[in-house]
Amino acid sequence: MADNAEGPSKSALKKAEKQAKQAAEKAAKAAKQAALPIVGGKKSEDIIGMTVTKTDNFSAWYQEVVIKSEMIEYYNEIAGFFILRPTSMFIWGEIRKWFQERIEKMGVDETSFPMFLSAKSLEKEKDHVEGFAPELAWVTKAGDKDLEVPVAVRPTSEAVMYPYYSKWIRSHRDLPFRLNQWNSVVRWEAKQTTPFLRAREFLWQEGHTAHLTEELAGEEVLEILELYAGVYEQLLAVPVVRGRKTEKEKFAGGYYTTTVEGYIPSNGRGIQGGTSHCLGQNFSKMFDIKIEDPNPKEGEKAKHLHVWQNSWGLSTRVIGVMVMIHGDDKGLVLPPRIAKLQAIIIPVGINKNTSPEDKKKHYDDLQDIKDTLKEAGVRSDYDIRDGYTPGWKFSDWELKGVPLRLEYGPKDAAQKVISFARRDTGEKGTIDIASLSTDIPTLLEKIQSDMYTKAEASFRSHRINITNWEEVNPALDAKNVVLIPHCLAEKCEDKIKDLTAGKAEEQEGPAELKAPSMGMKSLCIPFEQPAGVEKGVTKCLNPECGALAEQWCMFGRSY
Amino acid sequence: MADNAEGPSKSALKKAEKQAKQAAEKAAKAAKQAALPIVGGKKSEDIIGMTVTKTDNFSAWYQEVVIKSEMIEYYNEIAGFFILRPTSMFIWGEIRKWFQERIEKMGVDETSFPMFLSAKSLEKEKDHVEGFAPELAWVTKAGDKDLEVPVAVRPTSEAVMYPYYSKWIRSHRDLPFRLNQWNSVVRWEAKQTTPFLRAREFLWQEGHTAHLTEELAGEEVLEILELYAGVYEQLLAVPVVRGRKTEKEKFAGGYYTTTVEGYIPSNGRGIQGGTSHCLGQNFSKMFDIKIEDPNPKEGEKAKHLHVWQNSWGLSTRVIGVMVMIHGDDKGLVLPPRIAKLQAIIIPVGINKNTSPEDKKKHYDDLQDIKDTLKEAGVRSDYDIRDGYTPGWKFSDWELKGVPLRLEYGPKDAAQKVISFARRDTGEKGTIDIASLSTDIPTLLEKIQSDMYTKAEASFRSHRINITNWEEVNPALDAKNVVLIPHCLAEKCEDKIKDLTAGKAEEQEGPAELKAPSMGMKSLCIPFEQPAGVEKGVTKCLNPECGALAEQWCMFGRSY
Repeated sequence: MADNAEGPSKSALKKAEKQAKQAAEKAAKAAKQAALPIVGGKKSEDIIGMTVTKTDNFSAWYQEVVIKSEMIEYYNEIAGFFILRPTSMFIWGEIRKWFQERIEKMGVDETSFPMFLSAKSLEKEKDHVEGFAPELAWVTKAGDKDLEVPVAVRPTSEAVMYPYYSKWIRSHRDLPFRLNQWNSVVRWEAKQTTPFLRAREFLWQEGHTAHLTEELAGEEVLEILELYAGVYEQLLAVPVVRGRKTEKEKFAGGYYTTTVEGYIPSNGRGIQGGTSHCLGQNFSKMFDIKIEDPNPKEGEKAKHLHVWQNSWGLSTRVIGVMVMIHGDDKGLVLPPRIAKLQAIIIPVGINKNTSPEDKKKHYDDLQDIKDTLKEAGVRSDYDIRDGYTPGWKFSDWELKGVPLRLEYGPKDAAQKVISFARRDTGEKGTIDIASLSTDIPTLLEKIQSDMYTKAEASFRSHRINITNWEEVNPALDAKNVVLIPHCLAEKCEDKIKDLTAGKAEEQEGPAELKAPSMGMKSLCIPFEQPAGVEKGVTKCLNPECGALAEQWCMFGRSY
Repeated sequence: MADNAEGPSKSALKKAEKQAKQAAEKAAKAAKQAALPIVGGKKSEDIIGMTVTKTDNFSAWYQEVVIKSEMIEYYNEIAGFFILRPTSMFIWGEIRKWFQERIEKMGVDETSFPMFLSAKSLEKEKDHVEGFAPELAWVTKAGDKDLEVPVAVRPTSEAVMYPYYSKWIRSHRDLPFRLNQWNSVVRWEAKQTTPFLRAREFLWQEGHTAHLTEELAGEEVLEILELYAGVYEQLLAVPVVRGRKTEKEKFAGGYYTTTVEGYIPSNGRGIQGGTSHCLGQNFSKMFDIKIEDPNPKEGEKAKHLHVWQNSWGLSTRVIGVMVMIHGDDKGLVLPPRIAKLQAIIIPVGINKNTSPEDKKKHYDDLQDIKDTLKEAGVRSDYDIRDGYTPGWKFSDWELKGVPLRLEYGPKDAAQKVISFARRDTGEKGTIDIASLSTDIPTLLEKIQSDMYTKAEASFRSHRINITNWEEVNPALDAKNVVLIPHCLAEKCEDKIKDLTAGKAEEQEGPAELKAPSMGMKSLCIPFEQPAGVEKGVTKCLNPECGALAEQWCMFGRSY
């Protein structure tokens, strides 16, 4: 199963393949350099704190923030691979717990299939294999011995799993049949890689289920999509639009694809957030997954029915989207619910004139505060590193995105309060020590919801319904995504992409860091349709199309 | 890092390599056949229920039980790989939660490194690379293009991770530095593979930590080892012996290895359960992981100190050990704490004469019982499949190892009780419906502790202290492991292996299923040493050795 954003859709791939091959070596080189900019003659790596602003060079800013906040380390040994450090893995762990609990309740069981697949099983579904073949990593040797038959590392597990579904699913009593696995997959991308968003290996979950009817399969597709939206909205404070992919952008070999789509305000690009596919009966026919009809027509012998299948996947890409949306010029900004460290306590006003006894007493207070917070379910720590000023520490924890800074000095102690500063807004205030255990959790939840509200307003105001073609390009240039009446035909989408493409030469900055200059792609057909598209009347907005519009379709420059 | 049982120790490997290569094709073939026996002209696969007894053919019994209980499916596409089905993954999930919670409290953070390593980084530690080189799976192609530099799938991650430890660890303030990852590793075994025990890919956790001193590193080694013992004893009801590996059997490139060792009563073989290694400063010197001495001598400039490192791993092998110890001729027997389904409720006494109303009322009761149990934290379900007799259902759930069967018929209903049968002992009784929510959890815990007690008694009575060499072979043949006074020298171990080897031809049954005929290996030097070895006085028990004994060492035929 593909998170399409990381695996190309079938038609997109055929076209991109040629260009991509040419771009491959260049991309590998760029990735190797870890692409941090040079500032004042120094590599920015060697400078503490951020050196690039989000506005000046968004791409360089992103790379700098994920490295310096210690989310990511570039894996220098092999281009296109990244190390996920504890800050990132904590987030993925929280997402995993949240999602796992909910799919368990739905009756989805955990499984673990091998990471390799044979060429034979891959060949069964043609569209599917075409989509992934150019990105397969092939193991051809074990030790110093050639393998008789090479095996590929899974890019997704349809072809690994479905031969066994045909063995295990024998009766309607076995349905719904639902398995999920948490693992990593490998897609040897030729395109430029980016931490979290496009990597040659990434972590994800992949669910693969089978159902008796199209309707039952369809219900689950949406149930899962709603969980994906929940991961974004409830954990990552990221708004998404729910919708269906067009035929051009759907999963290779599937029936239809639903998706949650995000939006990056800094460059106005759309980004696919997670996809829940109905595979229909295509794979079940290829892999012969069938049951006896439980409700045969009277007097007739029971026929065999092919099952209806779904697959759905959510990857660590979600973390990258969150970073891009919430981060600022000081560094990472983490929503409290997924921050490994929610509050950092920093002693202030302690200096050379402070007596050792007073210092000890003050530090004991810090421990008490931490203990109180722990009991209240808040993940906190204090920073008593000697040799660093409070100001330096403030910047350091801002860079790392800790949602709440708590400052505690002798004056605070005297007044039995603690001073706070919010990472998201910079807002400051004090809280009574006596009410820490209720006020801090409340404040953290407030930060969480404010972050979501802000991002949601931004996405809403940059999602523009357009009924005049002339307005499309200006809207894109003004960093919007657009909803237009569209015929939903693949050819028309290709044409629209051409009509809206910009030129790379017009952009500033080093070549490796430029956003690829691109025309707009369809992001999804939103479930929530504005009024105004009348069937049989409204025309497709593409001036060169001429066909009738089917629905509003969301388009944008995208990742 | 190696769970040695799955990766050979360095000296063992050199010798085994040649034989192993010859055995490779044979093993692959055998694995492909999924090796279930033929019974009465039928493949045992096609017969419901177990066809082999644990005593008659232990190896075939094991393969049959893991398949028929639906723990494992053989991956026919590629030899030596297995699919872990929900029953297995539930167990692994419980182990993961239990262990993760405890290492988090220790301050171990989660990380995720790429699955590939370059030849360059692998070459840094010579002993280490020698140990793993013959089993490395090499990716040489991406799509249809040859890679400029082939990359290997990690067999363990020392060489992947430590280059970054040298970057991240700069000061004593960064210590202890502790990372863990849950992933799968690939070791392309030439030897015969066995579900859970020896697979070409397996799931595990690998912890990699760095410390200021040998002492601090050593403390952690034992803390982790105790957690590994806890996984066996507290979750899997499996007794283990804690000890240290000999030089011959320790981890390739490490300083010393501690281990928990299990015992399989059916064939008297020892089995390595999990290993916690102190790597010393060997890797930190190779990978240049150093800090400035925080306590320099007065008047001297601070020197650089290389950190002390540990690595520790526990794999899905633990599940195989559990199956071998607790399973019986009816199938799997699961300890309640790790059973996905702890109690299965089966209606009895419902037949053609039962009125639809009575049947409905009875089935409603089943739901009430299930709800009550759920609230009490018991994982239960009922089996109301039509067309199957209660007896058939009993056997089916026994095969699958569900710890407790609850039978509920009209007679039980009248008396407001439920009848139970324990899977481990077959013991039967009744429980008042009114006290289900306390009595069932108590009974499950009783089953758990009884299973452990029984296995512990068995291991204890088959662990024999021997001071007369003539008794060694008879003890092994009587399915014991032995403790003997030993010099701990590598050469002496080799000799002992030769002296105690049996001949394969003497065994019965098809060649693929025979236990490899083997001499005894050292399993560990138990921390708990019996009295009787006097330094400088007691001699090594090997009659051809002549050296003085250092300690009691546990030897056995082993996996």
